[in-house]
Amino acid sequence: MKKLWGGRFTKSAEEWVDEFGASISFDQELVLEDIEGSIAHVTMLSQTGILTNEEAEKIKNGLFSLKEKAEKEELAFSIKLEDIHLNLESQLTDLIGPVGGKLHTGRSRNDQVATDMHLYLRKEVKNIISYVEELQDALLAKANEHIETIMPGYTHLQRAQPISFAHHLMAYFWMFERDKARLAENLNRINVSPLGAGALAGTTFPIDRNYSASLMGFDSIYENSMDAVSDRDFILEFLSTSSILMMHLSRFSEEIILWSSQEFKFIELDDSFSTGSSIMPQKKNPDMAELIRGKTGRVYGNLMGLLTVLKGLPLAYNKDMQEDKEGMFDTVKTVAGSLKIFAGMIQTMKVNTNVMEQSTKNDFSNATELADYLSDKGMPFREAHEVVGKLVLYCVNKSCFLSDLSLGEFKDASSLFEEDIYHVLNPVTAVQRRNSAGGTGFEQIKKAIAKAKACMNKEGQAIK
Amino acid sequence: MKKLWGGRFTKSAEEWVDEFGASISFDQELVLEDIEGSIAHVTMLSQTGILTNEEAEKIKNGLFSLKEKAEKEELAFSIKLEDIHLNLESQLTDLIGPVGGKLHTGRSRNDQVATDMHLYLRKEVKNIISYVEELQDALLAKANEHIETIMPGYTHLQRAQPISFAHHLMAYFWMFERDKARLAENLNRINVSPLGAGALAGTTFPIDRNYSASLMGFDSIYENSMDAVSDRDFILEFLSTSSILMMHLSRFSEEIILWSSQEFKFIELDDSFSTGSSIMPQKKNPDMAELIRGKTGRVYGNLMGLLTVLKGLPLAYNKDMQEDKEGMFDTVKTVAGSLKIFAGMIQTMKVNTNVMEQSTKNDFSNATELADYLSDKGMPFREAHEVVGKLVLYCVNKSCFLSDLSLGEFKDASSLFEEDIYHVLNPVTAVQRRNSAGGTGFEQIKKAIAKAKACMNKEGQAIK
Amino acid sequence: MKKLWGGRFTKSAEEWVDEFGASISFDQELVLEDIEGSIAHVTMLSQTGILTNEEAEKIKNGLFSLKEKAEKEELAFSIKLEDIHLNLESQLTDLIGPVGGKLHTGRSRNDQVATDMHLYLRKEVKNIISYVEELQDALLAKANEHIETIMPGYTHLQRAQPISFAHHLMAYFWMFERDKARLAENLNRINVSPLGAGALAGTTFPIDRNYSASLMGFDSIYENSMDAVSDRDFILEFLSTSSILMMHLSRFSEEIILWSSQEFKFIELDDSFSTGSSIMPQKKNPDMAELIRGKTGRVYGNLMGLLTVLKGLPLAYNKDMQEDKEGMFDTVKTVAGSLKIFAGMIQTMKVNTNVMEQSTKNDFSNATELADYLSDKGMPFREAHEVVGKLVLYCVNKSCFLSDLSLGEFKDASSLFEEDIYHVLNPVTAVQRRNSAGGTGFEQIKKAIAKAKACMNKEGQAIK
Amino acid sequence: MKKLWGGRFTKSAEEWVDEFGASISFDQELVLEDIEGSIAHVTMLSQTGILTNEEAEKIKNGLFSLKEKAEKEELAFSIKLEDIHLNLESQLTDLIGPVGGKLHTGRSRNDQVATDMHLYLRKEVKNIISYVEELQDALLAKANEHIETIMPGYTHLQRAQPISFAHHLMAYFWMFERDKARLAENLNRINVSPLGAGALAGTTFPIDRNYSASLMGFDSIYENSMDAVSDRDFILEFLSTSSILMMHLSRFSEEIILWSSQEFKFIELDDSFSTGSSIMPQKKNPDMAELIRGKTGRVYGNLMGLLTVLKGLPLAYNKDMQEDKEGMFDTVKTVAGSLKIFAGMIQTMKVNTNVMEQSTKNDFSNATELADYLSDKGMPFREAHEVVGKLVLYCVNKSCFLSDLSLGEFKDASSLFEEDIYHVLNPVTAVQRRNSAGGTGFEQIKKAIAKAKACMNKEGQAIK
Repeated sequence: MKKLWGGRFTKSAEEWVDEFGASISFDQELVLEDIEGSIAHVTMLSQTGILTNEEAEKIKNGLFSLKEKAEKEELAFSIKLEDIHLNLESQLTDLIGPVGGKLHTGRSRNDQVATDMHLYLRKEVKNIISYVEELQDALLAKANEHIETIMPGYTHLQRAQPISFAHHLMAYFWMFERDKARLAENLNRINVSPLGAGALAGTTFPIDRNYSASLMGFDSIYENSMDAVSDRDFILEFLSTSSILMMHLSRFSEEIILWSSQEFKFIELDDSFSTGSSIMPQKKNPDMAELIRGKTGRVYGNLMGLLTVLKGLPLAYNKDMQEDKEGMFDTVKTVAGSLKIFAGMIQTMKVNTNVMEQSTKNDFSNATELADYLSDKGMPFREAHEVVGKLVLYCVNKSCFLSDLSLGEFKDASSLFEEDIYHVLNPVTAVQRRNSAGGTGFEQIKKAIAKAKACMNKEGQAIK
Repeated sequence: MKKLWGGRFTKSAEEWVDEFGASISFDQELVLEDIEGSIAHVTMLSQTGILTNEEAEKIKNGLFSLKEKAEKEELAFSIKLEDIHLNLESQLTDLIGPVGGKLHTGRSRNDQVATDMHLYLRKEVKNIISYVEELQDALLAKANEHIETIMPGYTHLQRAQPISFAHHLMAYFWMFERDKARLAENLNRINVSPLGAGALAGTTFPIDRNYSASLMGFDSIYENSMDAVSDRDFILEFLSTSSILMMHLSRFSEEIILWSSQEFKFIELDDSFSTGSSIMPQKKNPDMAELIRGKTGRVYGNLMGLLTVLKGLPLAYNKDMQEDKEGMFDTVKTVAGSLKIFAGMIQTMKVNTNVMEQSTKNDFSNATELADYLSDKGMPFREAHEVVGKLVLYCVNKSCFLSDLSLGEFKDASSLFEEDIYHVLNPVTAVQRRNSAGGTGFEQIKKAIAKAKACMNKEGQAIK
Repeated sequence: MKKLWGGRFTKSAEEWVDEFGASISFDQELVLEDIEGSIAHVTMLSQTGILTNEEAEKIKNGLFSLKEKAEKEELAFSIKLEDIHLNLESQLTDLIGPVGGKLHTGRSRNDQVATDMHLYLRKEVKNIISYVEELQDALLAKANEHIETIMPGYTHLQRAQPISFAHHLMAYFWMFERDKARLAENLNRINVSPLGAGALAGTTFPIDRNYSASLMGFDSIYENSMDAVSDRDFILEFLSTSSILMMHLSRFSEEIILWSSQEFKFIELDDSFSTGSSIMPQKKNPDMAELIRGKTGRVYGNLMGLLTVLKGLPLAYNKDMQEDKEGMFDTVKTVAGSLKIFAGMIQTMKVNTNVMEQSTKNDFSNATELADYLSDKGMPFREAHEVVGKLVLYCVNKSCFLSDLSLGEFKDASSLFEEDIYHVLNPVTAVQRRNSAGGTGFEQIKKAIAKAKACMNKEGQAIK
Repeated sequence: MKKLWGGRFTKSAEEWVDEFGASISFDQELVLEDIEGSIAHVTMLSQTGILTNEEAEKIKNGLFSLKEKAEKEELAFSIKLEDIHLNLESQLTDLIGPVGGKLHTGRSRNDQVATDMHLYLRKEVKNIISYVEELQDALLAKANEHIETIMPGYTHLQRAQPISFAHHLMAYFWMFERDKARLAENLNRINVSPLGAGALAGTTFPIDRNYSASLMGFDSIYENSMDAVSDRDFILEFLSTSSILMMHLSRFSEEIILWSSQEFKFIELDDSFSTGSSIMPQKKNPDMAELIRGKTGRVYGNLMGLLTVLKGLPLAYNKDMQEDKEGMFDTVKTVAGSLKIFAGMIQTMKVNTNVMEQSTKNDFSNATELADYLSDKGMPFREAHEVVGKLVLYCVNKSCFLSDLSLGEFKDASSLFEEDIYHVLNPVTAVQRRNSAGGTGFEQIKKAIAKAKACMNKEGQAIK
C-alpha cells in the first residue's frame, strides 16, 4: 500500500518496521475525537470560504457516516496507514472521492493529534471527577453512620489516641476533594484548542481558529503555534494528578487490608470484593484493595515514562511524542476502575463496631488525656508529659492499664490528680472532648459532614 | 542528653542510631518558619485564655530573641535533640525557664512540622514565580529584537518551514506562563493551616485555629485533623510542577546547545555562561545549559522519591514522612538557580541573525509553500503534496533547490504553477504569510508579544 | 460461572469487578510456559508415586493436546476463570474429567505463576541477547569499513578532537557488550525453580523439587519456599538492565538524529527507516531513531512501576504482585523491537565520509595537538594550554584557523614551535597519532575490532 | 581568581554562576581517590619516560603531602576552582611549583573523574557487601534460636498456613544473598580503569594504561576511550542494585512495624531502636523501621534521576554528567546506614514466642491440612478444596474453629475423615510435616541454616 506522504520516497519500509512505527493499534481509541475535530475543521473551512459549501457538505456527510460506523465498531484499520488520522482520511476518500483530500487544508497531523488528545482527556477527566464524587458519596454515607463509633487512632501504626471512625473516613473525603480541585485545574490547560497551528508555524490559509475552537467547546486557543504542537503539559499534569490520587487510594487500601486482617478485624469486606485461594480453602482475601495498591505502580510509571520522553526534546514535534498515548489511556482506565471498585467496597463493607470500641479500652491511647489534664491545671506540658510517661511505665511493669490505677497511685505521681481523672480516661470522653476545629469530637464531625455535603452540592451546580 | 519524650524509656539509643534518625542536619532550614509558627501559636494561646498574658509575653520574648539569633546564624543545634522543633524548644527553656514548656500546649510536632513546611513552601513558591517572570522578561526583550529574524523551523530535527526567531522564543514564553499558573494553583493547597490539628485528633484545649491561621497569613485551615498531619500533597504538587518546569528548561537547554554548536552556529553564549576545557584550549562549552538539562534528573528523582515514600502509608503520621524535606529543599534550590541562570544566559547571548537567515535559503523548507499554492488553486491537498514531493526528489537528483527550477520545469509538474511562484518560495514571504492566529507571521508575533506583556502586567497587579 | 475457590463464598462478584481483578487478558502470554510447568509437575508427581502412572498419563495427554491447541491459537479464555492457570485447569478437566484436579496436588498458583515467569523470561532474555549480537555485528561491519574515515569528536556537543568514525561506532559496541554481560548475569537469578514451594510454606506431599526443576532445565531451586513465591528480583533486574540498554540506544538515537540533520549531514538513513510528513513534502524524518529514543521512557516507567509495587509489601504473596506482568511483557517487546530496528538502520545507512572529513578541517579541534606538541617539548601542560588558548583567540579575531597561521605567528606565541607544526595540525595525523591503548589511532581500532570479534566468537561458543 | 582553562576567555563568570556550576561542594568526597589516581598516573608517566624520574618524584612527594593533609581534613577548597581536580592541582602547584602542571600530561579531567568514581565505588560496594553480611549473621543467629517457634504465615495479610519464625527470617537471608551476588557482579564493571582515555580520543603520549590500572588494582582497562569517559553504567547498576536491596529492607520494615503493633505483638523492639512522642507519653514507635522504609524513596529517586540525566546524551562527555555524583554518595550513605541499623534492630529485638504460637491456634490456617488429607486419600485436590471450604463456612456460622468440630461433623462432610484428623490439625504438626525441599518443616530449616552458613564461609574465603 502506498504511503500518503510517499511522493519523495523510492523504497517502501518493510512490514515489521511499519508495525514498530505505527500507532493505529492504540490510537484508534481516539477515533471519535478525530472525527469530531475534522467536523469542526471542515465547518470552519467552509465558513471562511476556503472550501465551498458543497465541498464541505460532502466531506461532513462522509465524516458522519464514518462516525456512525465507528460507534458501531464497524471500522477496520490498517497498520500500513500508520495512525488513526491517515486511516480515517483514507476511508473518507474511499467514500467520497478525492475531495476528501481537501479536509487536510490548513491543518497538519501535528495539530490534529494534539486536538484529539485534548478532546479525549477533557471527556475522561470529567468522568473521573464524577467517579471521585461517587466514592466521596460512599464515604459520607458511611461516616454518617459511624459518628459515634470509637476506634484507636494510629501514628507509626501504634495506637495513639482514640478517634471516631467517621473522622478517619472523613480524612479521605478531604484528600479526594483536593484531587478533584487538581483535576478541575488540569481542565484549564486541557480545554484549549491547538487546531490550526499547522505543522508548527501556522498556515497561509485564512482560517479562523477561534471559530473551530468554539465548535468543539474549547475555552480558548493556544497563543503560539509551535507551543500548540509541542505541548504535552496537560497530559503530564493529568498523570501527576492521577499519581497523587492513586497514592491516596494506596494509603486507604493499606488500611482496608490491615483492618481486614485477623489481628485487627475492624471490618469485613463483602464477598463481591474478596477472593479465595486455590490451595487454602479458608482464605478470604482483600484482593481488590491489594490490586489497587499495586496499580499505583503503573500510574507512577506512566508519569515517569512521559517525563522521560519529553526531557531534552527540541521543538517542535518529534516522533518520540507518539509515546504520550498508551500511558495516558492506561492511566484513565486504571484510575476510573480503581475509583469505581473503591466506592463499591466502601458501600458494602461491614464495620465491626464492637471490635473497634473494645480495642480502645485495652491500651494506653488515653495517656495524652492525663498529660492534658495536668497541663490544664497549670503544669507545663513538657513536665506533664514526663509524669505520664513514668505512669505508663509503672503500668507496663504492673501489667495493667491507666484506668486500673487507684487514685492514690495517681496522687503519688502528681498531687494535681483528682477523682474526675477516671472520667477523663474513658475513651468516649477522650474523643468527645477533642472539639477543636477539625478535631475528632462528635460535634466537629457533624459540622465537617455538613460542610462536605455543602461542598459537593456547590460543585454539582458549578458543573451544570 | 535526655530525650524530651524519654519518660517511658529505660535505655538511650546509641549515637549513630540517633544520627541516622535525626533530621536537624537538614530541617534547620526551617528555623525561621518554626519560630514564626510558634509566635502565632502562643499569641493564640493567650488570646483564648489558655495561657496567661504574662506567660505568653515571656514565651514570645524568648522566641523573638531566638529569631534574632537565627537570622544572624548564631544558633547551634544538636543531633541529640533530633529536629528543629526540639532544638528550639530546648533553647527556649534554657532562656526563659520551664514556662517554655507551655508553648507545646494544644500542639504536637506533627502539626508543627506541617505548619513549618507550608510556611516555607509558600515563601519559596512565590520566589520561584518571580524568577519565572525574570526569565519571561528576558524572552520578551529578546523576541522583540528579533521579530523579523528568519530561521529554519524544525520538526524531527529536520528543517520544516522557515519561522521567525521571535516566534520560537515566544513558544517558551507560553510554557513558562503555564508553569506560573500551576505554581499559583499549588498555592491554593499550600496556603492552608494545619496548626492545632495536634498529634492526629485535635485537642481538648479551646484553641482557635482560624485565629492562628490568620496570624500566619493562611487563607484557611485544614478541615480534618488527621488529614492535616498526614497530607503531603502540597509538596508532591510542587515537585511535579517543578518537574514539568525543568522539562521545559531541558528542552530549551537542548536547543541552546544545538544552536551553539559549530554545525548550527545560530547563537554565541556569553563567556560568563560558558566554560573551557582542561585539555582542549579551543573549547567554549555551553556548560550551564548542559547542567540545567542534567538537573532535570534530580527533580524527577525527588518527585519519584516522595511518591514512593507515601505509597501505601496508613494514617496518620509515620516516620517515613520525615523523608519529605531534603528533596523539597533540593528542588527549590535547583529550580530557583536554573531559572536565574537561564535568564542571564538569554539576556547575554549573541544571535547570529545572518547565519539563521542564510540557513533558510539552502534547503527545502519552502516546499509546503508550493503545496499550499496548488491547494489554493483548487487541487486537493493530498494531490498537491504528492506533486511537490516529486519536485523535491527531482531537485535532489539534480542537486539544486526549488527556487532554482525554471517555470517550465514547474509547469511540467503542474500547469497550475505561474510566475508568482518565485515570490512564494522566498522564505521571508513564507514566514510573513503565515498569519493565522498564533502563527509565525510578523503581525501575529507583534500581537502575541503585546498580549504576553498584558498578561505579565495583569499578574503583577494581581500579586500586589 | 462458579469460582474454583468458591466453596467458602455465598455471593458472586459482579462482572466488572471480575474484569478489574482478572489477569487472563494479559497472562495468556504465558500459556505455553504454564503447560510446560504442569507437564514437569505431573511427571514428578508420578515419578514420586504421589499420582499413579495411569493418572499422570491421562493428565499429560490432556496437557499435550492443550499445548497443541495453544500453539495453533485455538484456545479460548474466559474472564470468569481469572487467570491462565484456572483457565487451563478448567479446560483440562473438561477434557479428561475430575482426575485433572489432581494436577494441583502439592502446588499452588503462587509457585505456579512464579515458575511460568521464570520460564518465560529465560526464553526472552536469551532472544534479546541474540538481538544485541545482531546489532553488534552490524556495528562491527560498519566500523570495519570506516577505520580511516575521519570525523569531529565531540564533548559538550562542541568539536573537541578529530576521531575515526569506526572508533565512535565501537564505543557503542562495548556498551552493548556490557548489556549482554548484565543479561547473562540476570539469567543466574532467572534460571532457578520455585515450583513446589506451594502457597508459601512448602507441602506435606513427598515431592521432588530438584527433579521437576531439572525437567524444565533450571540450574537450581529456591532454597526457601516463602522467598520462592515472594521474589520478583529477577524481573526487576531485567527491567533495570533493559533500562540501561535503552539508555544506550537513546544516546545512539540522539546521534543518528543529529547526524541526519541538514546541519550535520554526516549520514543518510535508508528510506525504509525514515518517514515523511503529511504536510511538508520535502521531509525525510529519522522516525525510528526518534521513536526508540522515546521508548526509553516506557521502559524506565516499567522499572519504576514494579519498584513501586514491591515497596513495603509484607511476605508472602500479595495480589499487588499481579502487576508484575504487563510491564515485563511490554519491556520484552520494546527492547527486542528496538534492537532489531537499530541493526537494520545501521546496516543500511549511508555514511557521507566527505562531509565528515571536511568538517574536521574547518574548526579548532586540532588545538590539543598544539598543546601536546609544546608539552612534549618540555613545557608544563598547563602553560601549554594557556599559550594555545591565546592562539585560538587570536585566530577567532582574525577569522582564520590554526593551520592558516604563519610560522612567525606561531613563534610569537612560543619559540618552541617549528616547521613540523603543520604536519601535527593535520586532522588525519591527529587521529593517527592517538595510539594509546583504546585510543582512536588506526592501529588501535584494528586491534579493538579484532578483540571484539574474538569476544563474540567466544560467547557464541559458550552459548552452544 | 583566574580559571585554569581561561586562556580563550575575555570575561570571567559571576560568582553565583560559578557556584551553580561548581562541584567542589560535593566532589571533595573523592579527594583521596583523586590523589590515588594521580599517584598511579605520575608513576606511569615516569616509568614510560614521559616525565623524568626527578619530575615524577617531586610530583609524588607533593601528592603524598596533600594526601596526609586530606586525611587530617586540613585541605581547604575553593569554589572558584570548580572541582576537586582543579583544586588539588592548584594546591600541588602552590606546593611544588610549575612542574605540578606536568601531572596533567596525557590525561584529561574526563578520564580523571571517571577514575575517581571507579575507585570510590569499588571501596564502598565492598563495604556494603560486608554490612549485608552483618545483617545476614544477625538473621542466622535469630533464626537458629527460633527453629521451633510457630507463627502464622500470611498471604494477602490473611493468615494462610502456620510456619516457623526461623523460616520467615531465612526468606530474607536469601534475598540478601541475591543482593550480594548482584553487588559482586557490579564490581565486574566497576573494577575497570578509564585512566588514559584522555578527553575522549586517547593521547599521543606513549602512556601505559595497563600499568597505571594495575597500580590502582583494577582488573582491566576500558577498550574504547570514548566509552571510557562517557560510561556511567557502573553507577546505574549500583543504584538499581541498591534499589532492589532497599525494596527488600522496606518489606522487612513493613513486617517489623506490623509485628510491633498492639494488634500483632509478635515482637518488641529494643528501646535503642525506638522513639517516643512529643505529645503522647505512652508511645514507643518503630521509628528506625519506618525511616528505612521511607528511605527506599530516595534511592529509587536517585536511580530515576541518573537514568533521566543520561537519556539521549550524545557522546562523549557532557556537563550533565556532573549530576552523577550526589545521588551516588547519598545512596552509599543510605544503604550502609540502613543495613547497620537493621542488623542492630534484629539482634536486639525481643520475640514474643507465646503470642506467635497462640495466634496459630485461633484461626483457620490449618484448613489446607484438611484438603491435603483428603487429597492424600485419593480425592482430587479441587474437590477436597471445595469440601473444606464448606467446612470453614460451617465453622464461621457456628463461631468455632476446625479442631472444635466432632468426628461426626467431619464425616458428614466426607467419609474419608478419620480420628487422626485432630493430629493433622495441630499447627505444630502442620509445620513439621511440610518437609518438601525449601519448606517450613523443622528438618528443612536446619538444612537451610547449615547451607546458608556454608555459603557465607565460602564467600568469606573467596574475598580473602
